[in-house]
Amino acid sequence: MSVTAAQGFTAAGIPIGLKSTGAPDLALVRNTGPSTASASVFTSNRCKANPVLWSERVAAGGEVSAIVLNSGGANCYTGDEGYRTTTATAEAVAEVIGVEAGTVLVCSTGLIGDQLDRSRLVGGVATIAAALADGEAAGQDAARAIMTTDSVPKLAERRSASGWTIGGMAKGAGMLAPGLATMLVVITTDVELDSASLDHALREATRVTFDRLDSDGCMSTNDTVSLLASGASGVVPETGEFIAELTALCRDLTLQLQADAEGADHDVAIEVVGAATEQDAVDVARAVSRSNLFKAAIFGKDPNWGRVLAAVGTTDAAFDPYGIDVTINGVRVCRAGEPDEPRDRVSLEERAVQVLIDLHEADAAATIWTNDLTHDYVHENSAYSS
Amino acid sequence: MSVTAAQGFTAAGIPIGLKSTGAPDLALVRNTGPSTASASVFTSNRCKANPVLWSERVAAGGEVSAIVLNSGGANCYTGDEGYRTTTATAEAVAEVIGVEAGTVLVCSTGLIGDQLDRSRLVGGVATIAAALADGEAAGQDAARAIMTTDSVPKLAERRSASGWTIGGMAKGAGMLAPGLATMLVVITTDVELDSASLDHALREATRVTFDRLDSDGCMSTNDTVSLLASGASGVVPETGEFIAELTALCRDLTLQLQADAEGADHDVAIEVVGAATEQDAVDVARAVSRSNLFKAAIFGKDPNWGRVLAAVGTTDAAFDPYGIDVTINGVRVCRAGEPDEPRDRVSLEERAVQVLIDLHEADAAATIWTNDLTHDYVHENSAYSS
Repeated sequence: MSVTAAQGFTAAGIPIGLKSTGAPDLALVRNTGPSTASASVFTSNRCKANPVLWSERVAAGGEVSAIVLNSGGANCYTGDEGYRTTTATAEAVAEVIGVEAGTVLVCSTGLIGDQLDRSRLVGGVATIAAALADGEAAGQDAARAIMTTDSVPKLAERRSASGWTIGGMAKGAGMLAPGLATMLVVITTDVELDSASLDHALREATRVTFDRLDSDGCMSTNDTVSLLASGASGVVPETGEFIAELTALCRDLTLQLQADAEGADHDVAIEVVGAATEQDAVDVARAVSRSNLFKAAIFGKDPNWGRVLAAVGTTDAAFDPYGIDVTINGVRVCRAGEPDEPRDRVSLEERAVQVLIDLHEADAAATIWTNDLTHDYVHENSAYSS
Repeated sequence: MSVTAAQGFTAAGIPIGLKSTGAPDLALVRNTGPSTASASVFTSNRCKANPVLWSERVAAGGEVSAIVLNSGGANCYTGDEGYRTTTATAEAVAEVIGVEAGTVLVCSTGLIGDQLDRSRLVGGVATIAAALADGEAAGQDAARAIMTTDSVPKLAERRSASGWTIGGMAKGAGMLAPGLATMLVVITTDVELDSASLDHALREATRVTFDRLDSDGCMSTNDTVSLLASGASGVVPETGEFIAELTALCRDLTLQLQADAEGADHDVAIEVVGAATEQDAVDVARAVSRSNLFKAAIFGKDPNWGRVLAAVGTTDAAFDPYGIDVTINGVRVCRAGEPDEPRDRVSLEERAVQVLIDLHEADAAATIWTNDLTHDYVHENSAYSS
């Protein structure tokens, strides 16, 4: 599991005192090659954190030797001083492992608007470089060091019969909404592919996975998903299989993020079918996923389909308001815009909830994964400055 | 105060058993003339309730003799059966007061997807027509009968030195977001104006009042704001003064809706200045008003300006991410995208909160009124099927 599953990678995770709790807060993943091809996608938020501003430039070059990640501070809206902290961290990593600073990605997560302790970061780099290892424990250490309000580390792995592997780690529990859902994700693979091929595959995979997680409608300033390829397996994968496995791995991590969303009691899959276009399906599902009234009703185990339709009605998607069916956990509570089966037949006792919306227009479909709106969500996000 | 403040109107509010609590749930407002000019605006939600479908047709005719409103059920997504309940109610009112059914507006509020009890409604019309009166108590009765989760009736009145009056009542506590903010509003006036002039004035007024209330981002299926003019004062008002007074009355009712929003601890005014266009200012303020993380932070008395900027960054408005100032309750916590005054200088002990965002682009400005996200909001909307 994790980022050390594929050949050609080492990792580590250690505490350096950025978190007041003393928990691990610095992670490093190194690609030992022979190849250093990569692809990354970043938040579409226009207010980007300093590590994103730096890493976008590095990613554009295609070659990534290492990625250094810290929790305990987002380094966002920290001005020139914050940007220099990012560059100093990249330079320290480059020096200690003997690569160009321009091939080192930097990710940060935590509170916006506070300066990171640069000397702790730069000082920590030498320590963590000495701890780099290729075993499973090292990958798990790295995954733990990027956690913020996450209750568990998120790890995934896929192995191809053709002799190659993809592994990954993710963090993210709040500010989960696309472009991308808030998260830091590092995926490593030992396939032989160039950066352009990796970029194509990563965009295909994230489009239908991380981009369709919308836990709380709030888009982060720090989201980064990076895919690093070492080529150490010596295998050039079949493109379709690689994209399929990468997508499966991304979906696995996406559902782990959903399952650990701050304060959530329910994991809700909103599936829209019968849409005129895939974008219509996404728009409708996303509108429902962002309705606080719908989300509070799910928390209260109330299959309130009126709130589903009220959210559907705010979109520009093609539909006849009196041609929509809504099914909740297998019970069709609304048919063609009228009450159908009694709502008390719907059980919302389980954590998993499926809301199926049939627009009866054409054949396009999409699913958005979201969570309910709970007392614990309010508590965590009012009591925790993040 | 209320809808009987202006000359030429009678009103009543009575219980007819639609609400299980026995609280008043039927209201009637009659325009006794001599004029029956009117204007109305309705929800922009494409999933519209039956009374909205009916009332849109009535409103298009311009003449409105009466408006009948019920709480205890939204009559939305109730199919042909529900539509016939609406028309039967209008016809009953028309018959008992001797007007055309096509001049009777109908409004309903409550749970979506349940049939209203048609016989109670039609039977209640004769009773309420006999109770119509022109005193202040009658206006207050009507305002009470349209309440759902509202804790207080909402009433307002403006009197012109030129001898005319505007009065109004409103309901709305949840599903408060524009186009329009969820509500039923009836405004009465004794000016002499034709329906086209009233329509112009009403749209000018609602555009900067009800349309800028965004308590919880959820758009209703039943919103209606109707303005009825009796002409009973015999005065043709000066257009500018009439629009100004109507806008002041609408703002008064808007702020009453905000103050009574479900579960809210804080009334938050998000003022965006220095925008390139008014629409940019609205877009930015609305994005912040819809950030659950920002709203939960305000509940927790945490002046978390990073969450303000993260929301601003999701918009297409013109701004330089490193040229934005954020001031909360008078303390400039962020200047040009960097931390400015310490956040602990901000007090959020009071209910009223002002967030001022300066985009430093040009001179356009707008304010969106919202509320915080609280435990009580989650509780009311998970425990109460509405």
